Amino acid sequence: MRVSIYDTTLRDGSQGEGVNFSLQDKLLLTRRLDEIGVDYIEGGYPLSNPKDFEYFQAVREISLKHAKVCAFGMTRRKNAPAETDTCLKALLDAKTPVVTIVGKTWDFHVTEVLGTTLDENLRMIADSVAFCKSQGREVFYDAEHFFDGYRANPEYALKTLQAAATAGASVVILCDTNGGTMPERIAEVVGAAKRAVACEVGIHCHNDCELAVANSLAAVRAGASQVQGTMNGIGERCGNVDLLSVIANLALKYKYDVLTPGSLTRLTETSRYVYELANLNHRVGQPFVGASAFAHKGGMHTHAVAKDPTTYEHITPEAVGNERRILVSELSGQSTILTKTAKYELNHDKALMAKILNAVQNLENQGYEFEAAEASFDLLVRKVAKEHKPWEVDKKLKLYQPWFERVTYRVNIEARENNTPITEATVRLKIAGQIEHTASEGDGPVNALDGALRKALVRFYPRLNEMQLVDYKVRVVNPRAGTAARVRVVIESRDGTDVWGTVGVSENVIEASWLALCDAIEYKLFKDEERAKR
Amino acid sequence: MRVSIYDTTLRDGSQGEGVNFSLQDKLLLTRRLDEIGVDYIEGGYPLSNPKDFEYFQAVREISLKHAKVCAFGMTRRKNAPAETDTCLKALLDAKTPVVTIVGKTWDFHVTEVLGTTLDENLRMIADSVAFCKSQGREVFYDAEHFFDGYRANPEYALKTLQAAATAGASVVILCDTNGGTMPERIAEVVGAAKRAVACEVGIHCHNDCELAVANSLAAVRAGASQVQGTMNGIGERCGNVDLLSVIANLALKYKYDVLTPGSLTRLTETSRYVYELANLNHRVGQPFVGASAFAHKGGMHTHAVAKDPTTYEHITPEAVGNERRILVSELSGQSTILTKTAKYELNHDKALMAKILNAVQNLENQGYEFEAAEASFDLLVRKVAKEHKPWEVDKKLKLYQPWFERVTYRVNIEARENNTPITEATVRLKIAGQIEHTASEGDGPVNALDGALRKALVRFYPRLNEMQLVDYKVRVVNPRAGTAARVRVVIESRDGTDVWGTVGVSENVIEASWLALCDAIEYKLFKDEERAKR
Repeated sequence: MRVSIYDTTLRDGSQGEGVNFSLQDKLLLTRRLDEIGVDYIEGGYPLSNPKDFEYFQAVREISLKHAKVCAFGMTRRKNAPAETDTCLKALLDAKTPVVTIVGKTWDFHVTEVLGTTLDENLRMIADSVAFCKSQGREVFYDAEHFFDGYRANPEYALKTLQAAATAGASVVILCDTNGGTMPERIAEVVGAAKRAVACEVGIHCHNDCELAVANSLAAVRAGASQVQGTMNGIGERCGNVDLLSVIANLALKYKYDVLTPGSLTRLTETSRYVYELANLNHRVGQPFVGASAFAHKGGMHTHAVAKDPTTYEHITPEAVGNERRILVSELSGQSTILTKTAKYELNHDKALMAKILNAVQNLENQGYEFEAAEASFDLLVRKVAKEHKPWEVDKKLKLYQPWFERVTYRVNIEARENNTPITEATVRLKIAGQIEHTASEGDGPVNALDGALRKALVRFYPRLNEMQLVDYKVRVVNPRAGTAARVRVVIESRDGTDVWGTVGVSENVIEASWLALCDAIEYKLFKDEERAKR
Repeated sequence: MRVSIYDTTLRDGSQGEGVNFSLQDKLLLTRRLDEIGVDYIEGGYPLSNPKDFEYFQAVREISLKHAKVCAFGMTRRKNAPAETDTCLKALLDAKTPVVTIVGKTWDFHVTEVLGTTLDENLRMIADSVAFCKSQGREVFYDAEHFFDGYRANPEYALKTLQAAATAGASVVILCDTNGGTMPERIAEVVGAAKRAVACEVGIHCHNDCELAVANSLAAVRAGASQVQGTMNGIGERCGNVDLLSVIANLALKYKYDVLTPGSLTRLTETSRYVYELANLNHRVGQPFVGASAFAHKGGMHTHAVAKDPTTYEHITPEAVGNERRILVSELSGQSTILTKTAKYELNHDKALMAKILNAVQNLENQGYEFEAAEASFDLLVRKVAKEHKPWEVDKKLKLYQPWFERVTYRVNIEARENNTPITEATVRLKIAGQIEHTASEGDGPVNALDGALRKALVRFYPRLNEMQLVDYKVRVVNPRAGTAARVRVVIESRDGTDVWGTVGVSENVIEASWLALCDAIEYKLFKDEERAKR
């Protein structure tokens, strides 16, 4: 059975804190959603702001393969005709194949928020739907607060749906606007709505009780044939339902027909694309598509997964375009290293594997942790492989070479009375046989060191300009020793295509930062060179 | 009806990526979970690592009001007696009132991963439970992969539960280890388990399909009386079920009896405390407890909420200790401040409360967080109270006085080739009218600054010798700005009687550390003086 997917990332999603799409972002996302077979794309609220208005003009120039663009608006004002309503006019001016009209279900909202009669609200719904329909649009009707309204006055709530359906709406969508309804109640109420109207029924959930996915699935199983939500569940408060999880569950667990064939394997890339566009950080633990969704730590699990992935995976990561990651953790053993190095195709060489394991364990004893620092692990493999019969190592792996030699560095921080401290770093590097001696101020010691390193290196490796640091974390490794303890610094860097983590450990936070910084730069240089060869 | 809450943040939660609790963290969290009425606290896996072993020794020294501590381990090895099994021995050596034993349900795992017969697996379960029971422990039995095992071989799966129950387990817990089961299936299988055993049935869910909360609720409604999970849902892959959401839904939506009376209003503070301990970022959109969970953006919503909050809120934020936020900001509100300052008995003075709130909001805007830094908050209250009609402030509170004036400091770090870097700090303080100028080397900049501070101060305040730093954490506050971002340093200090946290924020990690260090010292001096007076 087909379930249609209605994406409102561009409208309801943009209500999320810190979410802000440019016009260009909105057009890019429309194209991307169309590519994976999303059925309906709600582009915005034309009356609300000029950017949404421009979007509807621009989107008409894009030829979409599958998706229909929808414009969103409210029912007409009270006690006035639909034909002259400014909101409905803006909605029609958007010239989309579908318009979605939101109206009131909850008797209390009608009288208290809207300040009108229950009968006039029914006429507002019917007139608005009928008018848009008469102008050649397909009309969807969003019943705001449907579940709360149904609790307060079930008979009236169903009447609002019937008003929309009778006036020509092809789908009436039940909205759990406040996100407070439990799954079994969702199923019961969807059933009642199905019995009350002849048209299709849809569902629109919010995640305030961490039940939006369960609620959407319960609604579909009770007969809803359209699911509204957003990519990555972005949206106001706790967000809208995450369509990615809904799609994966509907397709893989219940075998519904969703999106277009082959699109399921693009869910992970779509998730990350939306985060990048919205300028939000990825959620590593996000179901199905997160970087940790198929990550395995701990020797026993790792061993079992290597034997048979179904032991600790409910689906194959490839089904949703994600990948398995074996984390190198405190409990590392031979099996972790084998799995972790599989991509280098070095496994035929048992002695090399043993040396890598040995190196990892030595570093772990010093406080290193590679689970969030795969780039440092990558460099370690190259270093060990270089010392170990390099001529026998598979050609796929570029052996370690220092891209620069670290001669000296110095950092000085001075604070006077209550002024901002002054930080200066100097570094001396040897690059291609010559000494580069540079200095930089910075907001702090890491920033200053980063500045000095770049000054020395960009002349030789200009692509370092593409790279920036995105996160910096410090942990004490053996807290009982107080300030004299060892600290572990983890740095996350990125460029246009990748995000990578590196690690440094030292009793000195500056030295640990320096080690992680240098690794981040070296990894960038290795990965770019390898990519260029392919 | 009562549902018991079993927290495994310290064991299963610590399998999450980037999660790493120190021994001190584990003890602090145990105390905090006990305070809110968590019924069972799974402290660790005594055989797996020395830190867990030390934890069980140390936790016996803490007197808990309500919670029972549980040690976790596996069934005995195949073909060997329980009495001499090293894992079971370690489990019993932990000397906890409850032990939780995990065993295999899935026939395929028994033969393929464990490499034994189905009958021997049943004996392994029964023997292990019976042996621990004979040693005076209450025994819980975790049935790993129960739902997958039940699908493959329902008869055998139920036999494993019966083996545990007959041998004396008081609760058998059904684990959806891979997180792949749908809610209606959870309910069906819990029903079957309830019919098969006379003891209590529990549920343990993972969030791989974004259904862990729905699954846990479905299990309780089908008869499960214990829910296992973690605070904030931290854990491997997509995490364990978030107990905070489960608790809130059970208590507020289904009216079950959970935790201890009044604890529900502490859920939000508990969530933030766990994030700080685990050195993870808060999830602003987290249901119930996130900073955005009750945030209202958009004029229409805001207006309606101002008229009547139930228009866009499914519960009152205060029910879970959270707050409504109308403006887009991260700010604390009046009620938080009232709760936080209750112990000072200053509440009669509304104007003072408003000034404290204002000071906190200003600092929060700069990236401060006082959740794990109550000592810094304490100093702030003293400072604000001093400026505000000091003569009217209750005598219980010693007003702020600087114990020393900070004139200048300087830190220099120099590294040559591959040698250990040399770190030197100098500080100039004014104490009792005279300038103290001291210098110290250190393992790193914080250690060197700490050394120089102590050299200057111990002559005046010898009791600073009792104090040591036990933890040091750094977090980037606005990670997108890379190394130039602001960092928040949280320092944990202790002496013979107390543990206290302080915070500093700056673009410069050294300055942020300096601020947190100075606060730690001042708090020590205040608290000792007040104690001496009592």
